[in-house]
Amino acid sequence: MEDSIRPGLKDVLTKQAGFSRDEYEFYFSLLKKRIVKKKEHYLQAGEISRATAYVNRGCLRQYIIGEHGKEIIIQFALEDWWIGDLESFHYEKPSLFSIQALEDSELMLLSRKNFLRVCEELPKYKTFHDEKVQRNHFATLKRLSLAKLGTPEEKYLLLMRDQPQLFQRIPLHFIASYLSIEPESLSRLRKRLTEKPRKS
Amino acid sequence: MEDSIRPGLKDVLTKQAGFSRDEYEFYFSLLKKRIVKKKEHYLQAGEISRATAYVNRGCLRQYIIGEHGKEIIIQFALEDWWIGDLESFHYEKPSLFSIQALEDSELMLLSRKNFLRVCEELPKYKTFHDEKVQRNHFATLKRLSLAKLGTPEEKYLLLMRDQPQLFQRIPLHFIASYLSIEPESLSRLRKRLTEKPRKS
Repeated sequence: MEDSIRPGLKDVLTKQAGFSRDEYEFYFSLLKKRIVKKKEHYLQAGEISRATAYVNRGCLRQYIIGEHGKEIIIQFALEDWWIGDLESFHYEKPSLFSIQALEDSELMLLSRKNFLRVCEELPKYKTFHDEKVQRNHFATLKRLSLAKLGTPEEKYLLLMRDQPQLFQRIPLHFIASYLSIEPESLSRLRKRLTEKPRKS
Repeated sequence: MEDSIRPGLKDVLTKQAGFSRDEYEFYFSLLKKRIVKKKEHYLQAGEISRATAYVNRGCLRQYIIGEHGKEIIIQFALEDWWIGDLESFHYEKPSLFSIQALEDSELMLLSRKNFLRVCEELPKYKTFHDEKVQRNHFATLKRLSLAKLGTPEEKYLLLMRDQPQLFQRIPLHFIASYLSIEPESLSRLRKRLTEKPRKS
């Protein structure tokens, strides 16, 4: 199985978690591959998230549906990202979120039981995981500030600067949902910014 | 100094972090008290957050100012809460946030140097801290979802349910800023909900 795994996982676990070759092999032996076809769901709201999921190939969106059926995208995930509902995973409670593949995707899953086993046998993995949660927390706090403060143009330009690759892979109406902008407004905004003559 | 400290800090460190009496006393000996008078700032945007701060008495708000001078409250803190910009604290970089006392407040500060010392000498404190960050992350993700999805009424009712004590202590225009609702709309909403006859 290891042959088809992109180098990202080994890289990040070696460099950021400090795994040796043996430690990585032990970790890798606990993973299970899951194929999620385009438009299929990996997780539905109300289900319990039973594993952490590393994206080996593909592209997914995590979203939540409000009382009036309005749907908002909370996160995208491309190759080398992790996706899932950690709160559901840790506390074994139903998830508020759904996760759907936007392209045929391949996930490497680590079950809760194996996650706890790795954390116990390799405390450096727990440290790596906690630091990932912390960085994610800081990013979410900034997104919360931006959601409340930012103009549509500011939100769009920041995303273009920080994650330009999303625009190559993800339909614009999904990006609009992620930015909480109406799809028509996002199209107009992009057109206006493209046409704007540069100052000379 | 210990006499004037409310029991909350000892309680949480004993019950949640598993501190013994000696461990608490060691921890406590590293804290420094800081008085912040009403309307004074504990942290200004652009400064580096040099300590974690436990609120022994008082009430504070953490806010951010957008490009056009618009101000948004990201968090309140009452007794037994921690407040600060952890990203600034951990990476020693200028904070995006400001923190101001809404009442005369008393904070118990743990400097970065001492924080690292406690984490090293008492790994259970690191675990406690990481779990706190994780819970905070889950709450922030929900607030992000609510900020994008919720109606003003939903946001108000959830805050009333989860943190009713805020309404006893904090001026309504600050709560409006926290909920991203115009102060006049929040007043009208409260009036309407109070007047609404209950279904019999």
